[in-house]
Amino acid sequence: MKRNSHLAHLSPNYLFLEIQKKKKAFLEAHPEAKLISLSIGDTSEPLLPSIANALSNYSKALSTEQGYSGYGSEEGTKQLRTKIAETLYQNTMHNTITPDEIFISDGAKCDIGRWQLLFGTDITIGLIDPCYPVYSDGSAILGVKNVVRMPLNAANNFFPDLKRADLIYFCSPNNPTGSVATKEQLTQLVHFAKQNRSILLFDAAYASYIQDSNLPKSIYEIEGAKEVAIEVGSFSKMAGFSGVRLGWSVVPKELTYECGYKIKEDFKRIITTIFNGASNIAQMGAITALESYSELQKQIQLYLKNAVLLKQALLRCGYRVDGGEHAPYLWVSQKERSSVDLFNHFLEKYHIVTTPGNGFGVYGEGYVRFSSFGSKKLIEEAAQRLSVTYPSSPPFSSS
Amino acid sequence: MKRNSHLAHLSPNYLFLEIQKKKKAFLEAHPEAKLISLSIGDTSEPLLPSIANALSNYSKALSTEQGYSGYGSEEGTKQLRTKIAETLYQNTMHNTITPDEIFISDGAKCDIGRWQLLFGTDITIGLIDPCYPVYSDGSAILGVKNVVRMPLNAANNFFPDLKRADLIYFCSPNNPTGSVATKEQLTQLVHFAKQNRSILLFDAAYASYIQDSNLPKSIYEIEGAKEVAIEVGSFSKMAGFSGVRLGWSVVPKELTYECGYKIKEDFKRIITTIFNGASNIAQMGAITALESYSELQKQIQLYLKNAVLLKQALLRCGYRVDGGEHAPYLWVSQKERSSVDLFNHFLEKYHIVTTPGNGFGVYGEGYVRFSSFGSKKLIEEAAQRLSVTYPSSPPFSSS
Repeated sequence: MKRNSHLAHLSPNYLFLEIQKKKKAFLEAHPEAKLISLSIGDTSEPLLPSIANALSNYSKALSTEQGYSGYGSEEGTKQLRTKIAETLYQNTMHNTITPDEIFISDGAKCDIGRWQLLFGTDITIGLIDPCYPVYSDGSAILGVKNVVRMPLNAANNFFPDLKRADLIYFCSPNNPTGSVATKEQLTQLVHFAKQNRSILLFDAAYASYIQDSNLPKSIYEIEGAKEVAIEVGSFSKMAGFSGVRLGWSVVPKELTYECGYKIKEDFKRIITTIFNGASNIAQMGAITALESYSELQKQIQLYLKNAVLLKQALLRCGYRVDGGEHAPYLWVSQKERSSVDLFNHFLEKYHIVTTPGNGFGVYGEGYVRFSSFGSKKLIEEAAQRLSVTYPSSPPFSSS
Repeated sequence: MKRNSHLAHLSPNYLFLEIQKKKKAFLEAHPEAKLISLSIGDTSEPLLPSIANALSNYSKALSTEQGYSGYGSEEGTKQLRTKIAETLYQNTMHNTITPDEIFISDGAKCDIGRWQLLFGTDITIGLIDPCYPVYSDGSAILGVKNVVRMPLNAANNFFPDLKRADLIYFCSPNNPTGSVATKEQLTQLVHFAKQNRSILLFDAAYASYIQDSNLPKSIYEIEGAKEVAIEVGSFSKMAGFSGVRLGWSVVPKELTYECGYKIKEDFKRIITTIFNGASNIAQMGAITALESYSELQKQIQLYLKNAVLLKQALLRCGYRVDGGEHAPYLWVSQKERSSVDLFNHFLEKYHIVTTPGNGFGVYGEGYVRFSSFGSKKLIEEAAQRLSVTYPSSPPFSSS
């Protein structure tokens, strides 16, 4: 068996695995270092007790005749799909989202991998760059060769000059830049997609971090979006489900191929064939999470306060810092420094692990991403380290 | 956007969705009918209390600082991978399986979908026929066109005349035929793969139903298998996790491409890119399931006793019945009857829903599959119905 050339062309490791390796090597050389990892965007606050109770009670009942359930619908329970439609898509004035347009998944990453299967490989992918590596790597695994990159940078205020593509991946609030698109920008995006017969793949995994009601939390707040866009959502960053695993895709009934066939029907065919539904336990927890939606905002506020704290410390040190207002990510740069240079600088000088921006695409060069996930105490310690000029080998202490 | 031709060539619905539609139509025409569904192979016995407790306790602790966990390793926890290696691969004398060769998933179906991504589309797939539709449909979604079918039938005692292919899908205990391969047959299979440079994709989802210690529960009980085979396992039918979702793949370190690169490394790249690990809750439950492995056999015995009960009833009625000894499936035929004819016959005469054998492949024509999942009471009722000659519109009563 020959090695699949699509895989051979990928970098050997997924981005965050590379960082783990660098971190490990640094610790071997500096066993005394107390590293603070602000690299992977992983939630740190415990689940709300109400959610943990729902998970726990449902699990317990699985040992009873009444409470046991086997295979559920691959699209997820009607109850959860209805709850998502009611709780999260009420502002989509022009575009009512109904439960049958919502497909529950085991997470946004997995669904993005399945989206690509819809459209085959003989197409052009439009990528904002930098972007979540799954958009490009997921397409590359399948063998998609035509990729158009749309740079995000300070000069265009992190909204791209749009270019024609069959599929356009877009993410707002953005990972990794931490920027957020305005209603006018998203309206421009939807119009562009319509005019160019592109399909938008809209990643709204960080929607719950938007604090300004004028900023759209869903592409479906834009008129006409149902005819051009698929959207993915996630409970990971909204409710701390990064380990529990739960997300969803919205595939609107208005979205069709040229022949008029509904894309939704093909997506259903894919998930019934190679996916078997999300864990019934996680789905039950998600229902409670949506019932506790306002309480969840407290956790989100904590992460956003962390972002402010880090941002202030970094600005004081003279770095350029973008994002971090409606997103748990800061996009940090300094003069002519490369991503690797900045990554090493924060690692060696402050014992803080970041993510090199060039790992998110060629136009991420010159940046590193700071994640603001972590306890208040941890982030305060990181901010403190950044505020102090240490000697070359700092005797750090961290919790 | 044009519709992806790979999807357009598939039947519009996944097999079991078609049956749901037929069932619904029948109930609309006969609202008084109390249908017994022996179609989808879905577990019906509640979880063991020890497993439910483990799930429940872990869930509860997710609301505490100590108990919370976010993203885990995409390959699964070390503890679970070690437990699987120790509990389930002890008989693989010639082929020790180590934890780093085990990749935890959200279920066998999903992993089979990911396997295919490893090898691209420019290959020949060898399918036993009939087979689990995911093998063929999952390949077809990606655009694999070269398929070689190896019929399973009574004449070859449900072990195929092997044909050359790049990948050979094989399943024992078999879904849907309920047959099980002997050590000699699997040795022949491994030798064939080695001689023909084929890779075996071995589906062992029903391994725990094997009651005879001379029959291999894993392909790795066969010498040399680590150099040619990937194996998938599942907690669904072993521990009732069909709704909780958990499975695993074994990708041995000895398995390489022609160039010498380890296939394991590519599989890791795929799961780190488009999968984010199985639910941490489900993984914790799986550890307890393996600790309760002998207790789980009681549930399996119940399903196997159901199979015997159904088999006896069907044999008394004059049907030919294969399988059901080391598998929860019976493969039922009668003279010149077609699958659809048999399906309608059992539905209309006994109000029992089966699965038409031709849904599993062209060589499944002439059969229906009975699943033996269900409570003892339900299966007794089904056996009772089969044993009685009813008038044309039987006044059935069922629980």
